[in-house]
Amino acid sequence: MSIKIRKLDSSTDGFHKALRAVLAFEASEDEAIERAVAQILGDVKVRGDAAVLEYTNKFDRLKADSVASLELPQAELEAALEGLEPKRRAALEAAAARVRGYHEKQRIECGSHSWQYTESDGTVLGQKVTPLDRAGIYVPGGKAAYPSSVLMNAIPARVAGVKEIVMVVPTPDGVKNPLVLAAALIGGVDRVFTIGGAQAVAALAYGTQTVPAVDKICGPGNAYVASAKRRVFGTVGIDMIAGPSEILVICDATTDPRWVAMDLFSQAEHDELAQSILLCPDDAFIQRVEDAIVELLPSMPRRDVIQRSLEDRGALIKVKDMAEACTIANDIAPEHLEISALDPHQWASQIHNAGAMFLGRYTSESLGDYCAGPNHVLPTSRTARFSSPLGVYDFMKRSSVIEVSADGAQTLGEIAAELAYGEGLSAHARAAEYRRKISADRLT
Amino acid sequence: MSIKIRKLDSSTDGFHKALRAVLAFEASEDEAIERAVAQILGDVKVRGDAAVLEYTNKFDRLKADSVASLELPQAELEAALEGLEPKRRAALEAAAARVRGYHEKQRIECGSHSWQYTESDGTVLGQKVTPLDRAGIYVPGGKAAYPSSVLMNAIPARVAGVKEIVMVVPTPDGVKNPLVLAAALIGGVDRVFTIGGAQAVAALAYGTQTVPAVDKICGPGNAYVASAKRRVFGTVGIDMIAGPSEILVICDATTDPRWVAMDLFSQAEHDELAQSILLCPDDAFIQRVEDAIVELLPSMPRRDVIQRSLEDRGALIKVKDMAEACTIANDIAPEHLEISALDPHQWASQIHNAGAMFLGRYTSESLGDYCAGPNHVLPTSRTARFSSPLGVYDFMKRSSVIEVSADGAQTLGEIAAELAYGEGLSAHARAAEYRRKISADRLT
Repeated sequence: MSIKIRKLDSSTDGFHKALRAVLAFEASEDEAIERAVAQILGDVKVRGDAAVLEYTNKFDRLKADSVASLELPQAELEAALEGLEPKRRAALEAAAARVRGYHEKQRIECGSHSWQYTESDGTVLGQKVTPLDRAGIYVPGGKAAYPSSVLMNAIPARVAGVKEIVMVVPTPDGVKNPLVLAAALIGGVDRVFTIGGAQAVAALAYGTQTVPAVDKICGPGNAYVASAKRRVFGTVGIDMIAGPSEILVICDATTDPRWVAMDLFSQAEHDELAQSILLCPDDAFIQRVEDAIVELLPSMPRRDVIQRSLEDRGALIKVKDMAEACTIANDIAPEHLEISALDPHQWASQIHNAGAMFLGRYTSESLGDYCAGPNHVLPTSRTARFSSPLGVYDFMKRSSVIEVSADGAQTLGEIAAELAYGEGLSAHARAAEYRRKISADRLT
Repeated sequence: MSIKIRKLDSSTDGFHKALRAVLAFEASEDEAIERAVAQILGDVKVRGDAAVLEYTNKFDRLKADSVASLELPQAELEAALEGLEPKRRAALEAAAARVRGYHEKQRIECGSHSWQYTESDGTVLGQKVTPLDRAGIYVPGGKAAYPSSVLMNAIPARVAGVKEIVMVVPTPDGVKNPLVLAAALIGGVDRVFTIGGAQAVAALAYGTQTVPAVDKICGPGNAYVASAKRRVFGTVGIDMIAGPSEILVICDATTDPRWVAMDLFSQAEHDELAQSILLCPDDAFIQRVEDAIVELLPSMPRRDVIQRSLEDRGALIKVKDMAEACTIANDIAPEHLEISALDPHQWASQIHNAGAMFLGRYTSESLGDYCAGPNHVLPTSRTARFSSPLGVYDFMKRSSVIEVSADGAQTLGEIAAELAYGEGLSAHARAAEYRRKISADRLT
């Protein structure tokens, strides 16, 4: 099996431009999808259940007679969990426990507490932090049905204190995925509707007679789901519109090259658009990784996807040294960054743009994907420059609290009135001035 | 001057539907604007400075010969500050100091620290929190030029530790606003370009030969700017696309009705689409507020805007009691919520959906707009259900940190491999399995 992966060298002219070309990814917009989604959203908004039922029966080839009949009773989730083979069930429960543990720690550390302080004149300022009322989780049906994704979306919402979690998952031809249903139960999902596509997103965003409107919709989906999420954003919150998954491995040449090759594969096997890049200062080691890729590829069940991904979007990059690798990593701002090195901390301290950092040779990205604890929903396509892993904080929001004392109103009123007049806003100024004098005609 | 404000009563049939109608606001999309913005963005992306210069000279009626000449030297900002009349300068500096003080407190409380913990087998998990590299602030030119808005956007970025803050502000016909320039200096802006519109947003998002690319763009703007921000989202972060401003006043009838009327005015004077709503359990008091509105309106410089806003979008709502007012407030999720009552805390404790809460009769919203300390960039159009005031946290991002020990890789590898096989992802499974056995052919 021959495979041709792009090789770059940071010391050559035009490297920066070549790297940009490797990273370039433009999500194409499909006019037909956009039109269909706009129509479905509008229809569900107006007709509610009736529209959801029609689209579901049509697209998923079902014969349901009501949206209520598409809700799964708790007993069905329990049966799915009971029916799992013991080893798989144990793995799912162990993963959930670890993800929960990490997110509980995150809740404490991430500033999820309300706070306030009192100034010398009695004025109180602060912020009240509260969980969302209701969250919706979209779970894809069919081949991309990942129980781990159910856990990663439901658990932070649950830990944040969201009152109700509503999951939607399409069941084309009525086929249900028991691992997904079991994960819903373990993850603490409250209600499950077997609906999908843009019609499910619309139901969650607008609410119908049967499906409750939520405040935020999370979870991955196909192009229809992504378009629908983008369109309902504003009516509800959304997590993100994820691009193709990426891994960047920085290696100091001390890791088994087959481990590195397999880590590159584990990103590439997701889909043909996934991106796997290696940065290494050692030419000979890069060659050994390439040899390992050639050696291991034929034994991979998803070798066709892996090969296509590596050839189209992968790269093996020779860098000057590890410090330069860190600089390049910050520019790439990868979703997953493996620092496979003897002393990973000295390099990690130089990284500030990455969705998740996997430190040391024992930390394969796949451990993080499933069970290390941190969330596997991570910013892609360089958005780690300004956004964060999905977390407890995504299911909470803040309200400013301002309580100005009678004394405080005297000093603050003067400042506010001065600035308000400066901006030509007289009502602002007069509202502040009213509080400055205790007028005789005050009520109490 | 006669004015006709909508009156509702929560005890009547159809109240809920009538309230929905009052709240309904659909941002219309203008095809011509969308096309123009798409074209400008594409042009600036490809041609950089040359395109920015052409559009700026055309739209702002300037004759600049380079983008570099559109950057304001620090001396010009200093001159603007020196030229302010002393009282206005003092007010601006006092406001900035208070906003800075609040956001410094917020930085400490909001979870801006990195954290990690070590498990018994030596595995380390945590999160690294770092500021954005570079933030862009859009400041409108012309009549909506608000120096307070410069402070509210720049200061949280500065407090978060953002390395460089780049401000853009159009100067139609070359007219500069000294208050805005002074605010830029006081707020800690690093570079100021006198460019605006979609071309300025494009320059910040993509970077040009002269304008550096930023990681996030904040700040309000007209329809072109809003469309441009929406379109570059993903390439950069954006703060939000704000809808019309809103105030909801809950009053227990113990506040001077003229104070309440002026607080409603101070929202309504922003623009005709702004929304001012009063919730009160006392019919007679509602009448007194209406009388005060009629009495005070003729004396307001912006009375035409106020009247239009109150008539089109305002409402005086009789509620059963204060508890019901809180329930309705949570449903409305207002940008600004005033609880003008004798004991505001008992009601504030029942509120969880609001951008900012102003407690007690001395806390006019205008004090918060300018100088109380909390940010005045707040979620509108019911988005306070899932989003937060602009804050220090908007200029920071998180990276997960995972360092699995050799021992940890044995237990985690088993769980991950089991789940990966369950999802059909063999490379994930094998990457985990490699770490489980210390293979003889390992390099070190």
